[in-house]
Amino acid sequence: MAEQKIPYKIYLNESEMPTKWYNVRADMKNKPAPLLNPGTHEPMTAEELSAVFCSDLVAQELDNDTAYIEIPEEIRNFYKMYRPSPLVRAYCLEEKLQTPAKIYYKFEGNNTSGSHKLNSSIAQAYYAKKQGLKGVTTETGAGQWGTALSMACSYLGLDCKVYMVKCSYEQKPFRREVMRTYGASVIPSPSMTTQVGQKILAEHPDTTGSLGCAISEAVEVAVTTPGYRYVLGSVLNQVLLHQSVIGLEAKAAMDKYGIKPDIIIGCAGGGSNLGGLISPFMGEKLRGEADYRIIAVEPASCPSFTRGTYAYDFCDTGMICPLAKMYTLGCDFIPSANHAGGLRYHGMSPVLSQLYDDGLMEATSVVQTDVFEAAEYFARCEGILPAPESSHAIRVAIDEAIKCKETGEEKTILFGLTGTGYFDMYAYEKFHDGVMDDYIPSDEELAKYRASLPKMD
Amino acid sequence: MAEQKIPYKIYLNESEMPTKWYNVRADMKNKPAPLLNPGTHEPMTAEELSAVFCSDLVAQELDNDTAYIEIPEEIRNFYKMYRPSPLVRAYCLEEKLQTPAKIYYKFEGNNTSGSHKLNSSIAQAYYAKKQGLKGVTTETGAGQWGTALSMACSYLGLDCKVYMVKCSYEQKPFRREVMRTYGASVIPSPSMTTQVGQKILAEHPDTTGSLGCAISEAVEVAVTTPGYRYVLGSVLNQVLLHQSVIGLEAKAAMDKYGIKPDIIIGCAGGGSNLGGLISPFMGEKLRGEADYRIIAVEPASCPSFTRGTYAYDFCDTGMICPLAKMYTLGCDFIPSANHAGGLRYHGMSPVLSQLYDDGLMEATSVVQTDVFEAAEYFARCEGILPAPESSHAIRVAIDEAIKCKETGEEKTILFGLTGTGYFDMYAYEKFHDGVMDDYIPSDEELAKYRASLPKMD
Repeated sequence: MAEQKIPYKIYLNESEMPTKWYNVRADMKNKPAPLLNPGTHEPMTAEELSAVFCSDLVAQELDNDTAYIEIPEEIRNFYKMYRPSPLVRAYCLEEKLQTPAKIYYKFEGNNTSGSHKLNSSIAQAYYAKKQGLKGVTTETGAGQWGTALSMACSYLGLDCKVYMVKCSYEQKPFRREVMRTYGASVIPSPSMTTQVGQKILAEHPDTTGSLGCAISEAVEVAVTTPGYRYVLGSVLNQVLLHQSVIGLEAKAAMDKYGIKPDIIIGCAGGGSNLGGLISPFMGEKLRGEADYRIIAVEPASCPSFTRGTYAYDFCDTGMICPLAKMYTLGCDFIPSANHAGGLRYHGMSPVLSQLYDDGLMEATSVVQTDVFEAAEYFARCEGILPAPESSHAIRVAIDEAIKCKETGEEKTILFGLTGTGYFDMYAYEKFHDGVMDDYIPSDEELAKYRASLPKMD
Repeated sequence: MAEQKIPYKIYLNESEMPTKWYNVRADMKNKPAPLLNPGTHEPMTAEELSAVFCSDLVAQELDNDTAYIEIPEEIRNFYKMYRPSPLVRAYCLEEKLQTPAKIYYKFEGNNTSGSHKLNSSIAQAYYAKKQGLKGVTTETGAGQWGTALSMACSYLGLDCKVYMVKCSYEQKPFRREVMRTYGASVIPSPSMTTQVGQKILAEHPDTTGSLGCAISEAVEVAVTTPGYRYVLGSVLNQVLLHQSVIGLEAKAAMDKYGIKPDIIIGCAGGGSNLGGLISPFMGEKLRGEADYRIIAVEPASCPSFTRGTYAYDFCDTGMICPLAKMYTLGCDFIPSANHAGGLRYHGMSPVLSQLYDDGLMEATSVVQTDVFEAAEYFARCEGILPAPESSHAIRVAIDEAIKCKETGEEKTILFGLTGTGYFDMYAYEKFHDGVMDDYIPSDEELAKYRASLPKMD
């Protein structure tokens, strides 16, 4: 098909939307390591996991074999309210960069949660409802996941309790109001409402919180309140499964126009967006049907892939969750409060960790002011004001496009634009005022947290 | 076509997007009254208007005869970055209301300006650039127009100075940062940077500002700075022309599925969204080809249609702009600071005023807490968190759908969802906290402002 025929935005028809999620684990030769019971170091059984998670989600979490899993009709109907999301050809960015590269992005920000998180929140809320639960608890960092979950719960009539990392809670008071609009309760974490919160506050009274700590609080409330379960917006296998809808749509849209990406780029905090975006492409790669260069981009202030250790670690600061084998900085690691937005998690999805360890993808890290510089550049030519998280991917996409300009290569770049930055204007303001810093943890600091990794046999 | 075949969202293909704007004035038997020179009370000539506006826009402003005006290719390319906007079938809202009505909304909020304003800002910036100008000045109320203009100017490389109504500037600091991201300067109005601002501040030192006052300041700067012109986001004929793209897309999407609305509803401040949405439908009505019930919804705190006078009045508080014949509350009228968001303008589009006076459309007003109640209800079932402005239309759409439930009529309702409320969480917070009030101006108060209307021969 002739180049000029490719529209600015490719929308699938509703009839072309995926009806099944794709489970990349089915095609992995080396499966992700199992979650372990923190006491016995034995693999967590479905029964043990069911104390924390809904049963259907436990089944999805443990299923390493089924390649395609049906998306229930109710979830597909909810998806239709904000999906398909557009695959956008960044014509204006290409022209501004004067690059021969062809740049595409899958834009997941066209919904009120402001990000891709809704893809998994509606699935997790649906299975909770199906199980007859009263409500769910969760943590949120930058606020997108909490918003997404509150939207899904409000739609289905479930109660929703959100533990929000304190520094985000304070920097983003309006995020709290959005969640409140959808009927959720929002508690800054660490808080005095849980034992683990009380313990952390006693040890670190001035802490600005972390995802690991908020997870501990939300899990504690879920397991001690009848009719509640805990849900998580990233890291878990089930979340990557739900997020595969991003990659499936992106691939279907590209296939429609005969486009094949050379490079696929995504930001990575816990890995939900990146894992979802790359799933079907990685599947082809694993099956030997195609090859792609896949790049995970993480903040230099929280570099789990690029400077972490591939080892079993706790998913939470309070050490009450199962152990996961992942690239991790240690569960006590808390990124600098000066780091804006999300991508603050100490670990990384076990699926992505295994793929990275197997050399099937690359990782790189970028500093904060470079990220915001790319964000502003992108906003001015493509219109969309991106989330700080997403802008990590923009930074590397721009860098790769500039390399193409230097070499004259006409590479096709696909990146995930996970969301919008409308609730991150405080961070943009710091950038505009020149008071944003580029904190990078020292080797000594990282070694200290590494030493706290649990000892395994 | 079978009912169930209608998708949740109807997107036109890029090839189906309008290539011409529709000028409803061409089909009006009674044309809108001309703008008058405030000194001589004679119709403003193109030459006089060219001191304030770009020449191509002056031509569009004065053209009451050409039905279709070509959209320049550069503007169409910019439109492709965020258009076509979806026409959404509100299946979830219908189900929650248990109404036999079929509810559709044209959603203009899927872009960073958060509203439909970008449709006209890119057009006005394009003609300014074409004329070789350095920059433009404008006013903004809730902030959508200023954001839209700063985005368009940044895209085209024009300077952009925005006078922002002081109460919005204070309630929405993050709006300022968005405009700054796009390189605009933002000044709270009234300010000491203009003579008219100094005069207003001397008389009313505690004023929270008004659109009329911000317009005066922006016009003063435009006419006294070489290489600058003034642009306006609403009220003017040219703006309704550009905004016709909303209605043209909505009608094309409905025609594709054989849908014919019975009732068309839009919020009305200066009339840009409503005028754009109804344009092609009103055209059919004027030509006797179809009939539609058309409802303008305004805030009870600023009721220009429902309690104003159809008369010549100044467009601005400083009385330096031309006189326009319109439904007006008097150019000194400033709505209560407790009223959230936009729709704060004292007058109404001359085109819509004439159509309303000719009985071709209805108007109604709603109080603020009823509006936010509808907004929250809508958010919880349709997902999208709506702007306070748009929620005026939601309120009446819900009321009409409830009437259908009572009568059993299967009416088709179309309303304009002009934007999102992500920057209005301060107002939502007041609503949640139960401290939002429903101020309605008294008859005495309105009579006082009415007395200030200019005396005409």
